[in-house]
Amino acid sequence: MRMIDQRILPQEFKLLSFSDHQAVAEAIQTMVVRGAPAIGAAAAFGMVLAAIHSPAGSKAELMQDLEKAGNVLIDARPTAVNLPWAVQRMLRGAKMSDGSVEDLRCYLVDLAKQIADEDVETNKKISEYGAGLIDDGDHIVHHCNTGALATVDWGTALGAIRTAHEQGKHIHVFVDETRPRLQGARLTAWELDQYGIPYDIITDGASGYLMRKGLVQKVFFGADRVAANGDVANKVGSYMLALAAYDNGIPAYSVFPISTVDFELERGDLIPIEEREQSEVLQVQLKDQKASPEGASARNFAFDVTPHRLLSGWVTEKGVIYPPFKKNLQAAMKE
Amino acid sequence: MRMIDQRILPQEFKLLSFSDHQAVAEAIQTMVVRGAPAIGAAAAFGMVLAAIHSPAGSKAELMQDLEKAGNVLIDARPTAVNLPWAVQRMLRGAKMSDGSVEDLRCYLVDLAKQIADEDVETNKKISEYGAGLIDDGDHIVHHCNTGALATVDWGTALGAIRTAHEQGKHIHVFVDETRPRLQGARLTAWELDQYGIPYDIITDGASGYLMRKGLVQKVFFGADRVAANGDVANKVGSYMLALAAYDNGIPAYSVFPISTVDFELERGDLIPIEEREQSEVLQVQLKDQKASPEGASARNFAFDVTPHRLLSGWVTEKGVIYPPFKKNLQAAMKE
Repeated sequence: MRMIDQRILPQEFKLLSFSDHQAVAEAIQTMVVRGAPAIGAAAAFGMVLAAIHSPAGSKAELMQDLEKAGNVLIDARPTAVNLPWAVQRMLRGAKMSDGSVEDLRCYLVDLAKQIADEDVETNKKISEYGAGLIDDGDHIVHHCNTGALATVDWGTALGAIRTAHEQGKHIHVFVDETRPRLQGARLTAWELDQYGIPYDIITDGASGYLMRKGLVQKVFFGADRVAANGDVANKVGSYMLALAAYDNGIPAYSVFPISTVDFELERGDLIPIEEREQSEVLQVQLKDQKASPEGASARNFAFDVTPHRLLSGWVTEKGVIYPPFKKNLQAAMKE
Repeated sequence: MRMIDQRILPQEFKLLSFSDHQAVAEAIQTMVVRGAPAIGAAAAFGMVLAAIHSPAGSKAELMQDLEKAGNVLIDARPTAVNLPWAVQRMLRGAKMSDGSVEDLRCYLVDLAKQIADEDVETNKKISEYGAGLIDDGDHIVHHCNTGALATVDWGTALGAIRTAHEQGKHIHVFVDETRPRLQGARLTAWELDQYGIPYDIITDGASGYLMRKGLVQKVFFGADRVAANGDVANKVGSYMLALAAYDNGIPAYSVFPISTVDFELERGDLIPIEEREQSEVLQVQLKDQKASPEGASARNFAFDVTPHRLLSGWVTEKGVIYPPFKKNLQAAMKE
């Protein structure tokens, strides 16, 4: 299993190899791979590695090993629902499959591939719907990275921008840098370079000013977990961005596959929010140069929750869902 | 004339010497010295250096040189009103003073010292009023740097926090890092270390999440220029911070001397907003390590405007001024 090391882009493009599920879990935790759909797919392949390495002679033994591996993978990061979703789908598939232990291993390889393939297909559908919201000449603020790097391929929010660009629409993206890990400045800017879409990088605090100056027409970001009422947990800073959009009458869209909706959670404040290492904030630099005094302390919540009242719509593979989200999601699911 | 090089704190504490007004203007432009009150005082001493170096034999000739020097200093940065305010005060003082050219030079030295001394006195008054708004146990979000470094001494918004701390109140500060130049992470954290006030550094996009979690009781920031209607231009990110405070029912205060009010400007959108070099955004690092792809472009507005509707109050040396700001400011000025 090979993945791009997203920690060192855009300076270096390097593929890393992973041979067991512990290494995959660590790669998710340390953000070699990040982005809710991408870590879901990575976890599915982590389960495949666990199945391959398990010395189990019976299906029951293999299931035990898979459940243990699943917990290790799920524990890597708490907020994105795609991680437990993919692990549970692998476990459910394993439970329901017949045949020998070896058959089961083969089945899990196929299922992981299917999860990955479905992600690309879903993203393309999502992106078609999202592109429909984008007009020629739009200047779009985009938060974090939601492109090919954040998914198996194509992307969600950035995928919509990419599809609109391929449709011939002239788009300009304000890439907010997305502190502390700079997924915007490092990864989204790098992807936009590949696609030939013009952009300017801005600091996270600047998007509100651009909106007040009338320089922004749309706001697009992804989602790591969506509560049943429509509240969206996403990379920290999304809430303040959506708030600024709302205050300026600019539509803000959260773009994600339906698998991101956690129907068990009624409201966004019930979504677990990961608090990561202080060093990500204290060391602004990609490497190890400190920006803060020796001994300074930090708080580093990786995500925040955007109340559904601030969102104009959800963009999903079932189409654009408008408020009231809960009701309209149920209707979309039935179609 | 000596000033702390604020570009290299907290790694190094270094004093730089300046012998002419051009060097002072460059120090203001490159942010060796920053903070609206501090650059006002620096400009006043820049005018003194211009007076000393002028070969003028008559008062008329000296006034010509002073006016030229004043323009160089004012052009260094456009947004903070303190810069033209201090230059114009020096010019007005020079025009009105009697005596020889040498007397005039001495008078300007005294006037610059007076501007500096008044700043400290004003800040202490401001800080007393500001401290009155702070309760024991408060967690306060503070934006940019508004402490002793940003003024001649003591500070405005951070001065209020410092005074409250000296009154024995237990305060904790969430220092937002303030991209792109990290005045929060570098300078405010460094000052709080000196004062023994506990703090955590957060990214600029995180304050909204902390507010939604109920972890914040007050928001304090400074001002670079205030329009007559109450709109406040301040370091970029202030608007989104004030918006998040408003959305969560948390009081947000802008803290500044009355000299920051520009009575000539009716509304905040008329305040000129400086756009600085892209490299500040593209190079996250204090030195020269790039965070973005080669050839990436950026927009770098240094300030934004917070509409007065989002502010709970202005803290000034005339006391705390509540909405309606224009009317209540006029009343405070008459007292």
